[in-house]
Amino acid sequence: MSLFELDDVVAGLREARECWRSAQQRPLELAVRELPDRAQVAEAVDALSSALFPLRLGPPQLNREGEDFFVGHTLDLALHTLRAQVQLELQYAARLDGRRADDLDARAKAIVRQFAQGLPGIRELLDTDVLAAYRGDPAARSVDEVLLCYPGITAVIHHRLAHRLYSLELPLLARIVAELAHARTGIDIHPGARIGAGFFIDHGTGVVIGETAVIGERVRLYQAVTLGAKRFPADDNGELRKGLPRHPIVEDDVVIYAGATILGRVTIGRGSTIGGNVWLTHSVPAGSHVTQASTQQRADEVAA
Amino acid sequence: MSLFELDDVVAGLREARECWRSAQQRPLELAVRELPDRAQVAEAVDALSSALFPLRLGPPQLNREGEDFFVGHTLDLALHTLRAQVQLELQYAARLDGRRADDLDARAKAIVRQFAQGLPGIRELLDTDVLAAYRGDPAARSVDEVLLCYPGITAVIHHRLAHRLYSLELPLLARIVAELAHARTGIDIHPGARIGAGFFIDHGTGVVIGETAVIGERVRLYQAVTLGAKRFPADDNGELRKGLPRHPIVEDDVVIYAGATILGRVTIGRGSTIGGNVWLTHSVPAGSHVTQASTQQRADEVAA
Amino acid sequence: MSLFELDDVVAGLREARECWRSAQQRPLELAVRELPDRAQVAEAVDALSSALFPLRLGPPQLNREGEDFFVGHTLDLALHTLRAQVQLELQYAARLDGRRADDLDARAKAIVRQFAQGLPGIRELLDTDVLAAYRGDPAARSVDEVLLCYPGITAVIHHRLAHRLYSLELPLLARIVAELAHARTGIDIHPGARIGAGFFIDHGTGVVIGETAVIGERVRLYQAVTLGAKRFPADDNGELRKGLPRHPIVEDDVVIYAGATILGRVTIGRGSTIGGNVWLTHSVPAGSHVTQASTQQRADEVAA
Amino acid sequence: MSLFELDDVVAGLREARECWRSAQQRPLELAVRELPDRAQVAEAVDALSSALFPLRLGPPQLNREGEDFFVGHTLDLALHTLRAQVQLELQYAARLDGRRADDLDARAKAIVRQFAQGLPGIRELLDTDVLAAYRGDPAARSVDEVLLCYPGITAVIHHRLAHRLYSLELPLLARIVAELAHARTGIDIHPGARIGAGFFIDHGTGVVIGETAVIGERVRLYQAVTLGAKRFPADDNGELRKGLPRHPIVEDDVVIYAGATILGRVTIGRGSTIGGNVWLTHSVPAGSHVTQASTQQRADEVAA
Amino acid sequence: MSLFELDDVVAGLREARECWRSAQQRPLELAVRELPDRAQVAEAVDALSSALFPLRLGPPQLNREGEDFFVGHTLDLALHTLRAQVQLELQYAARLDGRRADDLDARAKAIVRQFAQGLPGIRELLDTDVLAAYRGDPAARSVDEVLLCYPGITAVIHHRLAHRLYSLELPLLARIVAELAHARTGIDIHPGARIGAGFFIDHGTGVVIGETAVIGERVRLYQAVTLGAKRFPADDNGELRKGLPRHPIVEDDVVIYAGATILGRVTIGRGSTIGGNVWLTHSVPAGSHVTQASTQQRADEVAA
Amino acid sequence: MSLFELDDVVAGLREARECWRSAQQRPLELAVRELPDRAQVAEAVDALSSALFPLRLGPPQLNREGEDFFVGHTLDLALHTLRAQVQLELQYAARLDGRRADDLDARAKAIVRQFAQGLPGIRELLDTDVLAAYRGDPAARSVDEVLLCYPGITAVIHHRLAHRLYSLELPLLARIVAELAHARTGIDIHPGARIGAGFFIDHGTGVVIGETAVIGERVRLYQAVTLGAKRFPADDNGELRKGLPRHPIVEDDVVIYAGATILGRVTIGRGSTIGGNVWLTHSVPAGSHVTQASTQQRADEVAA
Repeated sequence: MSLFELDDVVAGLREARECWRSAQQRPLELAVRELPDRAQVAEAVDALSSALFPLRLGPPQLNREGEDFFVGHTLDLALHTLRAQVQLELQYAARLDGRRADDLDARAKAIVRQFAQGLPGIRELLDTDVLAAYRGDPAARSVDEVLLCYPGITAVIHHRLAHRLYSLELPLLARIVAELAHARTGIDIHPGARIGAGFFIDHGTGVVIGETAVIGERVRLYQAVTLGAKRFPADDNGELRKGLPRHPIVEDDVVIYAGATILGRVTIGRGSTIGGNVWLTHSVPAGSHVTQASTQQRADEVAA
Repeated sequence: MSLFELDDVVAGLREARECWRSAQQRPLELAVRELPDRAQVAEAVDALSSALFPLRLGPPQLNREGEDFFVGHTLDLALHTLRAQVQLELQYAARLDGRRADDLDARAKAIVRQFAQGLPGIRELLDTDVLAAYRGDPAARSVDEVLLCYPGITAVIHHRLAHRLYSLELPLLARIVAELAHARTGIDIHPGARIGAGFFIDHGTGVVIGETAVIGERVRLYQAVTLGAKRFPADDNGELRKGLPRHPIVEDDVVIYAGATILGRVTIGRGSTIGGNVWLTHSVPAGSHVTQASTQQRADEVAA
Repeated sequence: MSLFELDDVVAGLREARECWRSAQQRPLELAVRELPDRAQVAEAVDALSSALFPLRLGPPQLNREGEDFFVGHTLDLALHTLRAQVQLELQYAARLDGRRADDLDARAKAIVRQFAQGLPGIRELLDTDVLAAYRGDPAARSVDEVLLCYPGITAVIHHRLAHRLYSLELPLLARIVAELAHARTGIDIHPGARIGAGFFIDHGTGVVIGETAVIGERVRLYQAVTLGAKRFPADDNGELRKGLPRHPIVEDDVVIYAGATILGRVTIGRGSTIGGNVWLTHSVPAGSHVTQASTQQRADEVAA
Repeated sequence: MSLFELDDVVAGLREARECWRSAQQRPLELAVRELPDRAQVAEAVDALSSALFPLRLGPPQLNREGEDFFVGHTLDLALHTLRAQVQLELQYAARLDGRRADDLDARAKAIVRQFAQGLPGIRELLDTDVLAAYRGDPAARSVDEVLLCYPGITAVIHHRLAHRLYSLELPLLARIVAELAHARTGIDIHPGARIGAGFFIDHGTGVVIGETAVIGERVRLYQAVTLGAKRFPADDNGELRKGLPRHPIVEDDVVIYAGATILGRVTIGRGSTIGGNVWLTHSVPAGSHVTQASTQQRADEVAA
Repeated sequence: MSLFELDDVVAGLREARECWRSAQQRPLELAVRELPDRAQVAEAVDALSSALFPLRLGPPQLNREGEDFFVGHTLDLALHTLRAQVQLELQYAARLDGRRADDLDARAKAIVRQFAQGLPGIRELLDTDVLAAYRGDPAARSVDEVLLCYPGITAVIHHRLAHRLYSLELPLLARIVAELAHARTGIDIHPGARIGAGFFIDHGTGVVIGETAVIGERVRLYQAVTLGAKRFPADDNGELRKGLPRHPIVEDDVVIYAGATILGRVTIGRGSTIGGNVWLTHSVPAGSHVTQASTQQRADEVAA
Repeated sequence: MSLFELDDVVAGLREARECWRSAQQRPLELAVRELPDRAQVAEAVDALSSALFPLRLGPPQLNREGEDFFVGHTLDLALHTLRAQVQLELQYAARLDGRRADDLDARAKAIVRQFAQGLPGIRELLDTDVLAAYRGDPAARSVDEVLLCYPGITAVIHHRLAHRLYSLELPLLARIVAELAHARTGIDIHPGARIGAGFFIDHGTGVVIGETAVIGERVRLYQAVTLGAKRFPADDNGELRKGLPRHPIVEDDVVIYAGATILGRVTIGRGSTIGGNVWLTHSVPAGSHVTQASTQQRADEVAA
């Protein structure tokens, strides 16, 4: 009856797990399943998106008369789903630090209440992003099309929610939300990045924006743009030092064309244009037009 | 009982919506949910794909004896699903222009009938694409593997359906189909692009093809190729002018290797080869071999 | 009653299919549905992933006490699902070659038993990958976060399973698994690539690794790196020659930054660093630091 | 390739359908699928039930703060689902009578609006039923248990909704709702039956209540009770005459024990008790105690 | 970590299974899962029902133009599902008898082909049943309502399919289909019962019809009617003797009112009427009117 | 925009709820959703059933080699699901009594642990029931058929689980389980009833067994049998007195035929036979044969 020698395989896998756990010196209490759950987070994010734009991202049967009811009911469920996930992250963080986890329930509630109160503000910001997409893309026929179709909008909705979670000191939940967007759009924005109003990413596949990047208002990016770090500074022990500002500052009204790579804590001055495929590791003053020197092209070329 | 102050959040979100609607001077009749629905469109596209290739993309239990029945039944449902979506786009378009929407039902039926009649032709085109993939990739062992696995084939099936919708003046539905492919494959082809038979994209992630691009027969592209616009011409009022030809013309039998960027209404002459990472903004005659000058590499290098 | 002239469309599609089949001179016995099924394969891969990391990728309700039971039960179902798919590939391969398919059942069982016995080893390898991700990314707070969030980890779990299938001479199943990863992460690793322990891909969108690539231990890649072929050698008849080593060898402890392109059967010597956007078609010795010459940047720049 | 001779079977079934249609002299326009849909009606009924008792029959994650939002949103969707079904029944009724179907949309809306306004009254009635169940069953520990568990309550919720649809001249929808209850509980109440407040059926399997039955307040029934018709009067042509009162009148405060059969337009006087298995085809005055004569048992015996 | 002492419980259950298997002297080869699967059978039955009445029991989006396609495609899948279940029963039957199971695949195909060819005849029979229901119930407004709502019709559709399976010597599959109907309607008809055209059961809950019952044409039953066996004859060893005719013969045009019990191999002569709750264990000649003597009621009383 | 005057309806329903809550003087803390959830309980019961009979009620893909793994994993999830439901009932019970709910988590764990340890014993009991069904029904061809098809077995599996919950003082969960069986089979057994080994109910629709009934070993019942109470004794205040023994005692080896009604705390002596439709309200000694006097039939008549 031993077709696949299951007992052996199971034993082999158990050994591998135990070996890993002891090699990592992981305390037993970390070997539990209580961690935020990607599927639950995805459910909450989708619900929040539809509560933010009920007549565009809500259920197709929704009616204007029922708009507020839908929003309230959807928030009720989504915020409680989120509360459970927040509690899991708080508990996990405490376990990781070897702290006792007190008042998890109360703290989770307080955090989610704060999160909830920020939602109208997030909607206002997102309205500026939708408008920027509509105005920035000659192919866009209406703001509705932008909301229904554009991956850049999907990414920025996720980011603004993820960034709020990051600000509320929930880096794991924030990261899960960011990776949901990454999987759905190919756009990888670290939830720590600070991004101003009227932000638009066109096409978007391959865009990477790092944790300490700061982006002003009305900035426009195209596919495959990287706002990255030059190097990771290490401390005396050779350990990477975390949290240092290491990604670019992009000021208001900058446009960065496809494939451009900007690295390090440099500043791209207000109103500048960075051409396609440009490789840039120093700051440029306001109003600069940077292009790929060797090809002698103007900078605004890689839009599709 | 007011854990999350839901009433306030709901009121805040309503205010934000109203603020947006009045700022946009959106007529009340646009504040409705009647818009094409992404999930419905996805369902129709998947059904059409399986009707086009029943024994490869249809249900695993399908039998040869039942092939035509499957095709007919699947089309019956898919075309009626599509009809409803077409009607929603026609209604939306009329509302957007402030026109009355007459005869929506009859017009939607006529359009879908036309669409349906084009399906055998689409299948024939796709057969040339499948063959091109099989012949163009040394790793491909059979045409079946190509249909089951290759994201480039997924993208081109979506594109040929999307382009047909675009030609039938359903730009919103066409765009939704294109973005479905984009999300599934990382390949972003505007539904307006005209693409000849025997088209093959290998790997594909990051490919962007613009609205007015024209691609000949037997063209092959690799990942991260951009066929984009140099700039967006504006009219005297500074408004972007739409619909002008602004993307490349790629003639028959051209190969474009990974990461190449071709911008503007230039022509790549028949039989040319454009090397990996090449940046090109001018036309080249038939039979050209363009490579990255600085690296002195031959042009056919970036295939994986 | 003939709204869409379904009969005509069905007939047109049948004709197109027959036309294709006769043009391809496909024997009738290939016109069957018996092929591996992507959805079934995806189910098996997801089950195997959760059996490999039960408390991280298993069901949220799982408890430590039930860990082995979960692993055993999940393997039981997944391996039998896989067995059916293996049998389909064996049958298909025989049909393709015009061979008789004998002993399919016994052969499929034997192959899956071998596959099963390799799972603990795969888990051990993956543990080194997880650790590499944790150590290589300053933003990573814990190995748990890495497993829950990082697309690079998703890709490498898929790859190590796909590569095992490839080694067991199941190229079609292997390719399906690889394309599942590609669709989920934008990372495209051919299942034939041989990759050592401690492998980490950060961000990852746009990475392409070819079939005969060989990668050592502790190698780190960033987004949009290509390890590709320079050209496809053809035999005297102009047919592409298959299976020749044509992709790079990357030795231990190499780091390759974003957007770098390395082509052909070249060797990147142990401990080298290849800078962002570098284009490389020749071997470099151990300890090399290759950077984009024109921009005079150091090589470790494009991480985000 | 003709394993099951599908073509023949399909042809045989088509012939059978055509044969039936022509034998029935059914006008072609009746051979359409546009009929109320059982699954849609079930969805609407379940939604209405949960809107009537949100904290008992609503989703488990519901919170008090979100109660009204849930109710409003659920009604919004359920009433629109119902509206579509109402329109289908109106259209069907018109087709059946050979009338033109005018203003279907407006009429459906008006009917559903009326239906909606009756919901608070239905909830009040149902509260009396729940209380009656709680008081009438010594095993009931709380009103909550009654709502969660008792099939008699499930049946009466369905009936009060079905009866309302019946009163609004939607006999087909009403019947579908009644049969949903029948399938779920084994209790078969015709939607035409008029039933007063405080109604309770215990156990319930096998209960049958006819179309013109009239039941007073605080009536209690046990399993397998029949309130039926003695005979179906026919007119001069031998056609059954419809709509005549032909089922019992049961006055206030009557109890009818298990298996009792009461037939014809008889009246069971206020406060009477009808014993188990009694067979009764004549009226009895108020305060009667009717028992099975032959067995000399008291009448209140068959409760379980 | 041993919250529920799972290991002990699992061991205890294994012991109980082994104890049972050895007590039953079950050969090991019976301890396998290969048995017909209720869910699969349910799926096949639902599909067959919708293929028999496509515009009434098929999907709501179905269109007249697609009727035959739907029927053919649905049959294709349903018959192959059935074939797999037939094969499981044949294999099981062989195992049970200790026979070798040869040619399972071919035998299953042949049986299903026969089954398929009988479907048009079943549809014709069912049409007479639908008509009987419509004519026999004064509350029925149309044949459509009958098909959509009446549990008696649900039961008879299941029975005619089950009886066909029974005739093809698949008693286990037949029984599963019969119990599906029983669970859905409360009507319990053994698949062996032979039932003529124009059969109608009103209300139906509690009806039981035994294996060797024979029912003529145009027979009508009400709820809780039993057509049972008087006793089970045993052979000399005290073993029950199977297959002997032991249930009633009900001739054409008989009506049996609610709750009547008829036992043993008796004959109810053509055109007879059996009153409600009557208990009958002897034959009655054609044209009889049997009523409950003690209550002196006429026989046609228990319809509701 | 006020199509259905949703605001009014929502307000009306809120008023109705508040009116009910204040009329019931329900403390606010009872107006919460925290109650056992029928769907969750159903999931747990189905999982437990499949763990009890893995190769008959488990998933169709299960293999002998994986039997214990399946059992352990399924129990792991089911017991934790149950634990959450137990906690909800404990909390609810405390709230209902106005007690503080201490140690809910620990108490729920302890109860579920006890429940788990009883499972092997339940399996042994059920094996006797399966055997009784197989032996008692001439139509049964194997014990496998009994497990796959017989509603009487479904009912007794539910009952033995429900009775265990009842014994562990979880009357609400027990009742939910009992009502699940009732809805699925038409058999209504109060979870309080004590039932010995080798119990078999044939056909079963309409069976009702009361809370304090006591049933010996090897008892067989047919459809529509009632084991009920004669009357509900009230105390001096007219309140029903709960928990008094008020249902029959049925000793070992008794057979009760279809439709028989036995009421009150009477005893049916060992080995007795009670005929179909008999009405009995007094005890009978061992070995009695009770039949319907007026019809002069033998007692063993109503089996179908």
